[in-house]
Amino acid sequence: MAKKQQILVIGHDNAGCTAEHEKIAFETGAEIAKSNAVLVSGGLKGVMLAASRGAKEAGGITVGIIPQDEPSEANEFCDIVIPTGMGMTRDFLTALSADGIIIIGGGSGTLAEVCAAYMHKKPMVAIKNTGGIAEQYADKFLDHRNRIKIIGVDSPQEAVKKILELITA
Amino acid sequence: MAKKQQILVIGHDNAGCTAEHEKIAFETGAEIAKSNAVLVSGGLKGVMLAASRGAKEAGGITVGIIPQDEPSEANEFCDIVIPTGMGMTRDFLTALSADGIIIIGGGSGTLAEVCAAYMHKKPMVAIKNTGGIAEQYADKFLDHRNRIKIIGVDSPQEAVKKILELITA
Amino acid sequence: MAKKQQILVIGHDNAGCTAEHEKIAFETGAEIAKSNAVLVSGGLKGVMLAASRGAKEAGGITVGIIPQDEPSEANEFCDIVIPTGMGMTRDFLTALSADGIIIIGGGSGTLAEVCAAYMHKKPMVAIKNTGGIAEQYADKFLDHRNRIKIIGVDSPQEAVKKILELITA
Amino acid sequence: MAKKQQILVIGHDNAGCTAEHEKIAFETGAEIAKSNAVLVSGGLKGVMLAASRGAKEAGGITVGIIPQDEPSEANEFCDIVIPTGMGMTRDFLTALSADGIIIIGGGSGTLAEVCAAYMHKKPMVAIKNTGGIAEQYADKFLDHRNRIKIIGVDSPQEAVKKILELITA
Repeated sequence: MAKKQQILVIGHDNAGCTAEHEKIAFETGAEIAKSNAVLVSGGLKGVMLAASRGAKEAGGITVGIIPQDEPSEANEFCDIVIPTGMGMTRDFLTALSADGIIIIGGGSGTLAEVCAAYMHKKPMVAIKNTGGIAEQYADKFLDHRNRIKIIGVDSPQEAVKKILELITA
Repeated sequence: MAKKQQILVIGHDNAGCTAEHEKIAFETGAEIAKSNAVLVSGGLKGVMLAASRGAKEAGGITVGIIPQDEPSEANEFCDIVIPTGMGMTRDFLTALSADGIIIIGGGSGTLAEVCAAYMHKKPMVAIKNTGGIAEQYADKFLDHRNRIKIIGVDSPQEAVKKILELITA
Repeated sequence: MAKKQQILVIGHDNAGCTAEHEKIAFETGAEIAKSNAVLVSGGLKGVMLAASRGAKEAGGITVGIIPQDEPSEANEFCDIVIPTGMGMTRDFLTALSADGIIIIGGGSGTLAEVCAAYMHKKPMVAIKNTGGIAEQYADKFLDHRNRIKIIGVDSPQEAVKKILELITA
Repeated sequence: MAKKQQILVIGHDNAGCTAEHEKIAFETGAEIAKSNAVLVSGGLKGVMLAASRGAKEAGGITVGIIPQDEPSEANEFCDIVIPTGMGMTRDFLTALSADGIIIIGGGSGTLAEVCAAYMHKKPMVAIKNTGGIAEQYADKFLDHRNRIKIIGVDSPQEAVKKILELITA
C-alpha cells in the first residue's frame, strides 16, 4: 500500500489571517512533513499557503484542492494541484481527501469543511487560542448528535501528534 | 421571466425529527405553496418530507435534490427530483438552488447547508424553539465576519413572510 | 408518487444552433409539455432555450440546470433553476436528472452528457438530420460495450413518443 | 513554483483490459515517472492500476481520483488518493487535474473524460492499436468544432514525449 497519511489543514483564508496564524500554520505544515504525512489544503492564501510553505520547506509533499478550474490559481507551494471548478463546493472534497483535520481559526468555509468532515466521521483537532471556528468548537461537539468531539490542542506539534494518533486508532 | 421564488426548507432528517418538527415543517411547506413559491428540499425524510407534503397538499410545486443517483430514493411528495449522485456534497447544491432558506432544528448537514448559503449570501430565517442548528444560530451571525444575520422567527407563517421580504429586498 | 417524467433535451448551444435547430427544439419542448412530462435542460441558449420556450408556450413545467452559481444566468423560460456552480461538470447532473434524453445536433458538451447518460443506463433518442452528435450516433452504440443503442428518430413528435415508450418499458 | 506536470492516463477499466493494455499502461506510467511528471489516474483497476504501478516501480508520484468516498477503494499504487464521493461525475475532475492526457483503449467513461478535457482545452494523445476510444479518435477531432485534434502516437515513449511537448507549447 503506497498511500501516505493525508492531513488537511484548514482555517483563516486571506481575510483575517494574522502573522500569528501564519506562524502556527507554517509550523503545522512543517510538522506534518516531518511526520512523513502529506499536507492537503484548499491551495489558496492565508493558512492554506502558510501550511503548504511550511511543509515544502521541511521537504514534504503538498496537495492543493482549489475552487477554480485553472491550476495556476493555486499558491506556489503546492506540488500537486486538483482544480475542481466547483467553487466553494470544493470544501466538501477537501474534507473527503483528509484522513484527519487540523483547524486554525477559520470562518464559514472552515465550518463547512468541519461539517463535511463530521458527516464522513473524520477525526479533527483544533488549535486553541487561534480564534474563529477553532476557538468556538475546540473540545466541543458539532451538533446535538454528539458523535465526534473536536479535540482542542495547544500547539502545532501537539496537533500533528494527536491527529496521527486519532487516525491510526 | 418564468422563474418562481425558490424557498429551501432544511432541518432535522429522520433522526431526531419529532411530530412537532413535522407539524412545523408541514405548515411551512403549505405556506410556501400558498405564496406561489416553489418548495425546494433535500428530498429525503423528516423535515424534508413533511415540508414537501405540506406544499403538495396546498397545491404547490416541490423539488427534491437528493444525494443518490436514483430518483426513486426521493420521498413521494417531490414533483421534480434532481439526483446528484454526490452524497452529502449535495448540501451545497441545495443551498445554491435557494433564493432564501428556512431552518427548522437540524444537525451537521443543516449546518453545512447554512455555511454554503452564507458563502453565497443567501437570506436565512430560523424557526425558534425547534432545537438544533435553528436554535443555536437564531438571531446570530454564523462566524466572526458578521455578514448575514440568521433572523429568528416564531412561526411557519412568519418564516415565509419574512424570507420573502428578505429575498425581494 | 408525485414525480413526473423528466425528459432532458440536449444539443447545440448558441454556437452552431440554426433557425432549423431552434424550430425542432421548440417543437420537442412543446410535445414534452403536451405529454405532461417536465422539460429539463442545461438552462442556457440555443437548443436549451428553444426547447424551454416551446414547453412554456404549451403550458408545461421547465427546469434549467446551469453551470453558474447565479440563477439569473438561466434563460427566461425556466420555471425552476438549479445553479450548480460546477461549470461544465454540470453536464453529469443534467444526465442524472433525466428519465430519458432527446438529442438535437450537439458538440462536445452534448457528447459528455450522452456518456454520463449511458453510464447511468438512461434511454436516448437522437433526431436525425440535425448534424453533430445526434447525426454521428443515431442508431449506433456509444462504445464497444454495445449496451444501449441511441435510437434514431425523424421528428420531435416521434422523439417524444419513442422516449416515453423507452422510459416506461 | 512547486507544481509538477500532471499527466492523466485514461482507458479501459477492468472490463476489457487485456494483458497487452496493461503492458502499455505500465510502460506509460514508468515513462511519466522518468520524466519527473506526476501520474494522475482514476485510481481503480485496469489501465489505471497498471499505469500507477509502472510509475511507482520507476520511483514516481501517483495520484488516484476515485468515484467513492472511501480512500481504501483506490488501488494500492496510489500515493495520494482524492476520494470524490461523486460517482462517475469524478470523470470531470480527473480531466481538470490533467495538464495533458494519454488515452489507451477505453469506453464511455474514457470518452466522458475526453469530452471534459476537450472543453477545458487540454492537449491529448491516443496510443494507436489499443482499440476503443483511443482507436476511434486517434488523429481526429472530437466534434464539428474542430478545436483540438487528438494526436495519434505509436508507443508509450512517444506518447509521453509528445504530451510533454504539447503541454509546454
